[in-house]
Amino acid sequence: MSSDQPNMFLEGGQGVVLVGRTRKQFEIYKQVQELGNGIADLKAKKPPGYKKKIGEEVAKLLELKAQLGDDGPKKFVLKTPKGTRDYSPQQMAIREGVFNKIIQTFKRHGAETIDTPVFELKETLTGKYGEDSKLISDLADQGGELLSLRYDLTVPFARYLAMNKISNIKRYHIAKVYRRDNPAMTRGRYREFYQCDFDIAGQYDAMIPDAECIKIVVEILESLELGDFVVKVNHRKLLDGMFAACGVPDDKFRTICSAVDKLDKTFWDDVRAEMIDEKGLDAAAADKIGSYVRYSGGIDKIEELLADEVLKGQKLAVQGLEELKLLLQYCDLFGISNRVLFDLSLARGLDYYTGVIYEGILKGHTHKPGADGEENVGVGSVAGGGRYDGLVGMFDPKGKMVPCVGVSIGIERLFSIMEAKALALDQKIRTTETEVYVISAQKNLLEERLKLCRELWTADIKTESSYKRNPKALDQFQYCETNNIPLAIIIGQSEIEAGIIKLRVVATRQEREVPRGSMAEEIKKELEKIGSS
Amino acid sequence: MSSDQPNMFLEGGQGVVLVGRTRKQFEIYKQVQELGNGIADLKAKKPPGYKKKIGEEVAKLLELKAQLGDDGPKKFVLKTPKGTRDYSPQQMAIREGVFNKIIQTFKRHGAETIDTPVFELKETLTGKYGEDSKLISDLADQGGELLSLRYDLTVPFARYLAMNKISNIKRYHIAKVYRRDNPAMTRGRYREFYQCDFDIAGQYDAMIPDAECIKIVVEILESLELGDFVVKVNHRKLLDGMFAACGVPDDKFRTICSAVDKLDKTFWDDVRAEMIDEKGLDAAAADKIGSYVRYSGGIDKIEELLADEVLKGQKLAVQGLEELKLLLQYCDLFGISNRVLFDLSLARGLDYYTGVIYEGILKGHTHKPGADGEENVGVGSVAGGGRYDGLVGMFDPKGKMVPCVGVSIGIERLFSIMEAKALALDQKIRTTETEVYVISAQKNLLEERLKLCRELWTADIKTESSYKRNPKALDQFQYCETNNIPLAIIIGQSEIEAGIIKLRVVATRQEREVPRGSMAEEIKKELEKIGSS
Repeated sequence: MSSDQPNMFLEGGQGVVLVGRTRKQFEIYKQVQELGNGIADLKAKKPPGYKKKIGEEVAKLLELKAQLGDDGPKKFVLKTPKGTRDYSPQQMAIREGVFNKIIQTFKRHGAETIDTPVFELKETLTGKYGEDSKLISDLADQGGELLSLRYDLTVPFARYLAMNKISNIKRYHIAKVYRRDNPAMTRGRYREFYQCDFDIAGQYDAMIPDAECIKIVVEILESLELGDFVVKVNHRKLLDGMFAACGVPDDKFRTICSAVDKLDKTFWDDVRAEMIDEKGLDAAAADKIGSYVRYSGGIDKIEELLADEVLKGQKLAVQGLEELKLLLQYCDLFGISNRVLFDLSLARGLDYYTGVIYEGILKGHTHKPGADGEENVGVGSVAGGGRYDGLVGMFDPKGKMVPCVGVSIGIERLFSIMEAKALALDQKIRTTETEVYVISAQKNLLEERLKLCRELWTADIKTESSYKRNPKALDQFQYCETNNIPLAIIIGQSEIEAGIIKLRVVATRQEREVPRGSMAEEIKKELEKIGSS
Repeated sequence: MSSDQPNMFLEGGQGVVLVGRTRKQFEIYKQVQELGNGIADLKAKKPPGYKKKIGEEVAKLLELKAQLGDDGPKKFVLKTPKGTRDYSPQQMAIREGVFNKIIQTFKRHGAETIDTPVFELKETLTGKYGEDSKLISDLADQGGELLSLRYDLTVPFARYLAMNKISNIKRYHIAKVYRRDNPAMTRGRYREFYQCDFDIAGQYDAMIPDAECIKIVVEILESLELGDFVVKVNHRKLLDGMFAACGVPDDKFRTICSAVDKLDKTFWDDVRAEMIDEKGLDAAAADKIGSYVRYSGGIDKIEELLADEVLKGQKLAVQGLEELKLLLQYCDLFGISNRVLFDLSLARGLDYYTGVIYEGILKGHTHKPGADGEENVGVGSVAGGGRYDGLVGMFDPKGKMVPCVGVSIGIERLFSIMEAKALALDQKIRTTETEVYVISAQKNLLEERLKLCRELWTADIKTESSYKRNPKALDQFQYCETNNIPLAIIIGQSEIEAGIIKLRVVATRQEREVPRGSMAEEIKKELEKIGSS
C-alpha cells in the first residue's frame, strides 16, 4: 500500500466494508454540520433578511443529505463482537466497587502485582489446557510471530516466573482473558472477561500457602455480602489414586477427570454415560468412581477414606488425604472451617493442577438443570484454583520447578449478581464523584463560572459546570439533583459585586452566603458534614 | 477434534509447537518432583537404612531426568511477543501511582468511566485511521466474525455512543490499545500500550469543553512533576484553509497534513521533500506551507494571521482562527496561558479530527534527530487530542452527529520517564503495603502465628508471616527490613504464656510488650505514629 493512498479512499478495496463511508461522504458530513451550525446561528441572531437566507441554507442542506442517501443501503452492523460487551458507567461503578474490595484483600495479605501482555506466543499456551485448547483465540498471521490471546492468567504467570528466574513471589493480577466459548450455549459465559488471580510461588512447607488462598476466597466472598457460600476442596493426587484404585488406565486419568468435573453442572448418570460411551471406560470402573465421588464433608470423611481398604493401597491417594487433613486443620486456625467442605467430586478442568484444588460456590446459585426448576440455574462457582507445581518447570530450559498455588476470582459472575442486586433494590448508583456544581443565575456569567471552577479544582474539589454560555437556571438545578451532586454554588451579578457566593445543599435546597475568599474551606466543611467528601 | 483427544497429545499435529513437551514428559516431571521430595524427607528423618534408600531413589531420579533429556533440544522460546513487555511489581507500583493521579484529575472534572472490548468488528475500525490503518492487528478467522484489536479508545467510544444513542457524556477510559508498529524503528513505541482517554461528547457552546480538556492535560502534567512542558494548539479548519490558500488540491489535504505532522520529529527540508517527491505537491505550494508552519505564539500570532491577506479569503481558516482565539481566552481564565502555545505546524496524524487539536510536550524531551545530539532524543509528546465532530455520525444509521472533544494521555511515555527518574534517584520502591510481619522466635509455633495472622486480617491490618513451619529468626527479621515492612510482632513460648506479644518498630529495632488483647489497637496507633498506615 503506498503511503499517499490511505485505504479509506479505496472504495470496494480489501477491508473496506463501510459502503459509502468514503472521504467524500465524510467531507459532506462536515459540510452538513457547518450548514446546520450556520442556520442555528441565523435563527439566534436574526440578521436582516435572515428568513430568506435560512431558506437558502436549508435547501443546500437537503441537497447534501440527498447526496448521502444516494450511496445506497449501509451494510454496517453496529455491535460488539460476539460474546463481548461494553460496560456502562453504572456497571463500571459496580465493577470498581468489587475490584476495590478484592484488591484490598490481596493487599491485606501482602501481595504485589504484575502485568503481562494480552497475547502470548502461541507456543507458550500450547499443551497447557487439555481439552480446552480448542477455545484459544489466535491472532492473524500478518507476518511475524504466531500469537494467541491469553486464555487465563496462570500460564502467563508461569512464563513470567521462568523467564525472569523468579522462585518466590506472592502476586495478584487483574486482567482480561479470552475464550472462544459458544456464548449462546453456556449461560453467563463471555468470550472476553476479567480474571482476578492471586498466586503464591515458592518452595514452602505443605499446605500453608494453600490454606491462605482459601482464606482469601472466604474474605472476598464475605466482604461482597452475596449470601451463603462454600469452598469445596479436593486433591488431584487423591483423584488420581482413586482413579487407579477404580481401575482407570493411566492414560485416561485426565479425560475421566474432566468428565467428573461436569458433576457440578449435570447428573451422575450423564457423567457415567460420558465415561463409558464417549471415553471407553469399563462400566465397573465407572461405578466404582460413582461410589467415591459421593464423599463430601469434613475431616471425618477424610479419616473414613484414610481407613478405606482399597485407597490405602494407593500411595497417591494417601498422600492427597494427608495433605487435605492438614489443610482443613489450618483452615480451622484461620476460623473458616464452617465455609470449607471436602468434596471428592470436585475435579476442575485444567490439566496443570498437581495438588490441592478448590472452588468457591455461592449457595442458591447452583447449576443443575431440570429437577430443581429454572430459578436454580445461575452463577454457582465464583472462585477456583489449586496447586500447580509442574507448570513453571514446563517453561524453564532446565525444567527447574517452582511450586505454585493460587486462586482465580470469577469476577464477571460476581458483577452479574451485584448488578442484579442493585437492580432489585432499585439502587441509584452514582457514576461520578462530583462534589460541587457551579451555577450562574443570570446570563453572560460564563467567564465568572470558569474562574470559580479553576479555584475549586485548584483546591482539589471535584467540580462541574455547564458547557453552555447561558444555561437555563432550571436545567442547572435539575442537573445537580439528577446526578446526586451534594453541593452547588450559585452566582449572580449581585453576588459578584458583594464578593460572595451562595452555597446550596442540593438535597435540602438550603442556601447560605459565603465570602468568596473562604469558599473552598466552607465547601470542604459542608462535604464533611454531609459525609460525601 | 474428538473430545477425548486433547491436542496436547497430538505430537506434530497442528498447533503443537512444544517439541517434547508431551503429557508423558509432564508425568515424568511430576515423578521427578515426588522423588525429590521423598529424598529430602529421607534426609530429614533419617530412618534405618536411609542411606541405601537414598541411593536407590537418586538412581531412579537420574534415570527419569535422562528420559527428559532424550527428547532432544527444546525449540521453545521464552519471551513476550515482539513489541510487548511484562510489568514487574516495581514498574506496577510506579504505574499505579501515575494512574491514581490521572484518575483523580478525571474525577475532579466530573468524569465517569466506561469499558469496551479489546477487539472490535474489523469493519468498525475500517476507514478511521488514514495511513495508519495498516498498523491494525487482526484476529485469525477461526470461523465467525472478522475482528481486529482496537487501535485507540476513540473509535470504540464513538461506536459506543452511536450504538447506545448517547448524545451527552463526559467519560474517561483507561485501557490497552494495539498497533503493529515496528518497535525497533520507532523509539519507545510498543505494540501493546495503555491509553488514558478523557472525552466530552455533546452539543455545547464553542471551545468550553475544548478548553477543559487542555486544562486537564496541564493539571495531569503538573501533578506528575516531570519538569517544564507546553501544550501546543492548532485547528484543523485553519490547516485546511491554509492548505487551500497555498494551492494544495482538496484530495491532498489529509496526506499533506500527515506530512506536516512529522515536523515535530524531523526537519522542514525532509517534510518538504516528502510533500513534493512522494506526494506530488507543487514546490511553490510546499514553500507557501513552509512560510505558515513557522507561526507559533500566543493570541498576538492569531491576530496576525487574522490580518493575513491570503488567509482572510479562506472561510475555514478564519473560522479556525476565531475559535483558537476564544480557546486561548478560556485558557487564560483557567490560569494556564503560560502552558499553552498556538503552533501552526501541529497537525496530528489521525483523520477524524475536525476542529481544535493539541499536544502536550515535555520540554527537554524533544525528538529531532542529529544536530541537538543524542541526549535530546526522548519522549517529547505525552498527550494529544482534539475535536472530532464527525466520528459518531459515521456509526449512526441516520448519520446523526454527536460533537466530541477529547484528550489521550501518553501514559507509557510518562511511565518511562518516572521509571528513569526513580532509577536516577536510586529510590527504593515498595511493591507491597504490608504493615506487620508475624515472627516466631522459637520452633513449632506455626499454629500460633496463623492465629495471629487471622486476628490481624480481621482487624484489616495488612499482615504477612513466613510460609515455613520453622523459619529461622534471622530470616524473618531480614524479610521485614528488605521489604520495608514498618512493624513486626514477635512471639515465643513465654509471650504466649504471659498473654502478650512483642511489638517491634523495624526501622529503629525498638521493641515493647503489648497485651495480646489490645494488639490490633496498639499496631494501628503505632502505624499512625510512623505515618505508614
